Amino acid sequence: MTTRNDCFALDAQDRLSPLREQFALPPGVIYLDGNSLGVMPQATPQRVQQVVRDEWGADLIRSWNSAGWITLPQRVGDKIARLVGAEAGELVVADSTSVNLFKVLSAALAIAKADAPQRCVIVSERSNFPTDLYIAEGLARERGCELVLCEPDEIEGLLDERVAVLMLTQVNYRTGRLHDMAALTAKAHAAGVLAIWDLAHSAGALPVDLKGANADFAVGCGYKYLNGGPGAPAFVWAHPRHAERFWQPLSGWMGHAAPFEFTPHYRPAAGIARYLCGTPPVVSLAALECGVDTVLAAEEHGGMPALREKSLALTRLFIELVETRCAGQGLTLFTPRDERQRGSQVCFAHDEGAYAIVQALIARGVIGDFRAPDIARFGFTPLYTSFADVWDAVEHLKQVLERGEWREARFNERAAVT
Amino acid sequence: MTTRNDCFALDAQDRLSPLREQFALPPGVIYLDGNSLGVMPQATPQRVQQVVRDEWGADLIRSWNSAGWITLPQRVGDKIARLVGAEAGELVVADSTSVNLFKVLSAALAIAKADAPQRCVIVSERSNFPTDLYIAEGLARERGCELVLCEPDEIEGLLDERVAVLMLTQVNYRTGRLHDMAALTAKAHAAGVLAIWDLAHSAGALPVDLKGANADFAVGCGYKYLNGGPGAPAFVWAHPRHAERFWQPLSGWMGHAAPFEFTPHYRPAAGIARYLCGTPPVVSLAALECGVDTVLAAEEHGGMPALREKSLALTRLFIELVETRCAGQGLTLFTPRDERQRGSQVCFAHDEGAYAIVQALIARGVIGDFRAPDIARFGFTPLYTSFADVWDAVEHLKQVLERGEWREARFNERAAVT
Repeated sequence: MTTRNDCFALDAQDRLSPLREQFALPPGVIYLDGNSLGVMPQATPQRVQQVVRDEWGADLIRSWNSAGWITLPQRVGDKIARLVGAEAGELVVADSTSVNLFKVLSAALAIAKADAPQRCVIVSERSNFPTDLYIAEGLARERGCELVLCEPDEIEGLLDERVAVLMLTQVNYRTGRLHDMAALTAKAHAAGVLAIWDLAHSAGALPVDLKGANADFAVGCGYKYLNGGPGAPAFVWAHPRHAERFWQPLSGWMGHAAPFEFTPHYRPAAGIARYLCGTPPVVSLAALECGVDTVLAAEEHGGMPALREKSLALTRLFIELVETRCAGQGLTLFTPRDERQRGSQVCFAHDEGAYAIVQALIARGVIGDFRAPDIARFGFTPLYTSFADVWDAVEHLKQVLERGEWREARFNERAAVT
Repeated sequence: MTTRNDCFALDAQDRLSPLREQFALPPGVIYLDGNSLGVMPQATPQRVQQVVRDEWGADLIRSWNSAGWITLPQRVGDKIARLVGAEAGELVVADSTSVNLFKVLSAALAIAKADAPQRCVIVSERSNFPTDLYIAEGLARERGCELVLCEPDEIEGLLDERVAVLMLTQVNYRTGRLHDMAALTAKAHAAGVLAIWDLAHSAGALPVDLKGANADFAVGCGYKYLNGGPGAPAFVWAHPRHAERFWQPLSGWMGHAAPFEFTPHYRPAAGIARYLCGTPPVVSLAALECGVDTVLAAEEHGGMPALREKSLALTRLFIELVETRCAGQGLTLFTPRDERQRGSQVCFAHDEGAYAIVQALIARGVIGDFRAPDIARFGFTPLYTSFADVWDAVEHLKQVLERGEWREARFNERAAVT
C-alpha cells in the first residue's frame, strides 16, 4: 500500500510541482474543490490592482484603447483556444456559460432546421449540469422543440432523424465521468446531428481537442480549472464552418461588425466575434487572464498531457487510499474506475452522511463539496494538488469516519447553500 | 457673464462638494466622460483587494456563503432600487444591459401577445443606443415582429393597436435629450402598449421614479453614473405586476427557485430573481457596489433632487460659457435648451472638426467624447464635477478653437476606437 513517504517521493519526482508556486494556497487547507472554484493565482491581486488603479483609475475611458480592453475578449480567448484544441480567432470570452450555451444552442437549432426541418430534438444527459438543461429546456419551449434526457449509455440509440443537437458536458459534474468527445461527435455526425460540448469540467484539466474531434460548438467556464476567480466570464467557440452562418440571438453592440459606427442596424462581426454581446466586465476578465496563464505555464512542463497524467495519478491514488484505508465505512466509488472515462474528480457515495462527511472535512481544512443527494465530491487540480495532499486528505477522511465525527449535529445541519 | 471667480463661489456654496472626495480624480484631468465610464471611487481598490485576496484567495469556495456572494446580485440591486424609484426585492444586478434588455423585451412581447395576439410591433427611437436597437432587431426577427424606428416627436402618433412595446432610453446617448417617462408611459398604456425604459444615462444622474411612472420594465448600466468600473454588470427591473408572469428566456441556474437542489427541470425563482442567469462576475459586482455607494452617499446631502439641481446648473453654465466665450467658432448646441428635456450631458455639433476638437481637448487633459458623425459630447457628473471644472474646460475649448489646434493632423487621424 502507498505510504505517506511514497507520496513525498512522488511529489519530489513530479515535473509539474514548480507550477504550484503560481498559487496562493491558504495555509492549513487541502483544497479539493478547484473544480468548483479554482485557487487564486499569486499574480492576480497585483494585476487586478493595476486594472483598477492604473487603467481605470488613472487612464479612465482612454484604457479601452491604451490598455487594450477592447480586444481583451479575443486576447484571452486566443489563450484559451490553445488549451482546447482550437485556433486563434475561433474562441472569445463573453458572458456566462449559461448565456453562451443559449447562443450556440440557438445557432445549432437554426442550422439543423435549415438543413432538415423535421430535426427538432435536443438530446442530453439527465445528470448534465442543471443550467445546461434549463437553457435547453427554455429554448426548446420557445422553438416548439423537445428536450430528451437520457443516461450516458442510451445516447447513441437516441440519435435519429428527428434529432437536431446532441448537447453534452464532456466531464459530468456529479459523476466525474468523461465522455469520448471524438467518438460521440462522430456518432452524432453520422446520424446528421450537431454536437455541442460544455467544457466546464475539462478545459484546463485534461487535453481537449475540439478541432480534432470535429465538434460543432463549445462553451466553457472560467472559474474552475482556469482559475479565473469567482464568476469569471465564460468562453464560447464555434467551428469555423458554422461561425458565420447564423445571426446570434443576443445581438449586442460588441458583436457588431463596426460597434463604434453606431449604426441603427445590426451587422454581425466576422466569425466568433459576433458572439460578443454587451460590454464585458473588464476587471473580472483581466483576472481570468491571470488564471489562464497559470495553465499555459504548464506548456513548458509537458503541457496538457503532463497535467492529464498527473491528474490520473492523483485520482488513482485517492481511490486506492480511500478504498484501503477507509474500507468498511460505507463509501462507494461513484466515479468510473476506468481511467479513460474519468475526469479530474472523484466522487464517493455515502448513504447516510455524504453532506455531514464533507462538512466535517471542511472543519478540518479539507475542502471538497457535496452534491445532492448522497455524493461527496473531490476535485484534483494537477497544477496545485500534491500527492501528499491526497494522502493527508484521506487521513482526515479516515479519522472523520472512524471517530464518527460526521454524526455530530453541527455537521448535519444543512446550510442554505452547500 | 460668469467669471472663473464666480465658479469658485458656486463651488464654495455647493452642498454636494464633499462628495467629490469619494473619488480618485486623476491630477491634471477634467473628466467630462462620466456618462461613458464613471470615475473610480476611492473605496474601490481596497474593496476589490479584499474580495480577491481575502474572500477568494483565503476563503475560497466558502465565500459564497461567508462573504455573501450568493446574495450580492440582490444586495446591490436593492441599493440601486433606491436610486430609481423601485422597492427592495424588485431589481437585481445581472449580465449586461444588452442581455437584460433581451430578457425584458422577450417578456414584454410575450405579455403583449398573450393579451392581444395582433400586437407585434416594437417602437423605438431611431437614435436610441445601437445595442438596444440591435437586441430589438434580433428579437423582432426571431418572433416575426417588426421594429419601427422614429423621431421623438413621432412616438405618440405610432402607438396603435398593432404595437406591443415602446422601448426607449430615458436620456438619449447622443443628444442628451431627456424623455418624460411618466407622460410617455401613460400614453403607451392608454394605447395598450407596454413601456420598457433603459436607464443607462439616467440612473444615478437624475431622479428616476419607475413605480411613480408606472413603467413596465427597466434595464440600466453599472459603469456610467453608477461608477461601477469598466464593464460593470448591469441591472434589470420588472414591475411586480409582471415579474412572475413570464418564463425568462435565459433560464439559467441562478434564476432557479432552488439552484442548489440541482433538479433537471427549470422552476423560475419568485419575482425578479428569475432574471438572474449564470454565475455573476463577483469581483466586478463588488466594485459596482462601491460605485453605487458613492451615489447613495448623496442621500445625506439632498439626494437625487440635489444632484439634479447641480447637474442642471453645470450644464446651464457650460452652455452659457461655450456660447459666449466660443461664439463664432462653428459650434451648435445639439442638446435641448429646455432643461426639462435635458439629461446630464451637453453635446455640440461641429461640421468640420468634432472628432479633432475632442482629441485636442483630450491632449490637454479635458476628456469628453466624440459621437459620429459630428458630435462633441460632454458629460457632467454632479458627484464630482465642479463649476471651476466647467470654466476651465471651456477655456481649453476656447483655446483649441481660437488657435486652430484641432486642425493639426495628429488630432484628425482617427483611432480604431473613438
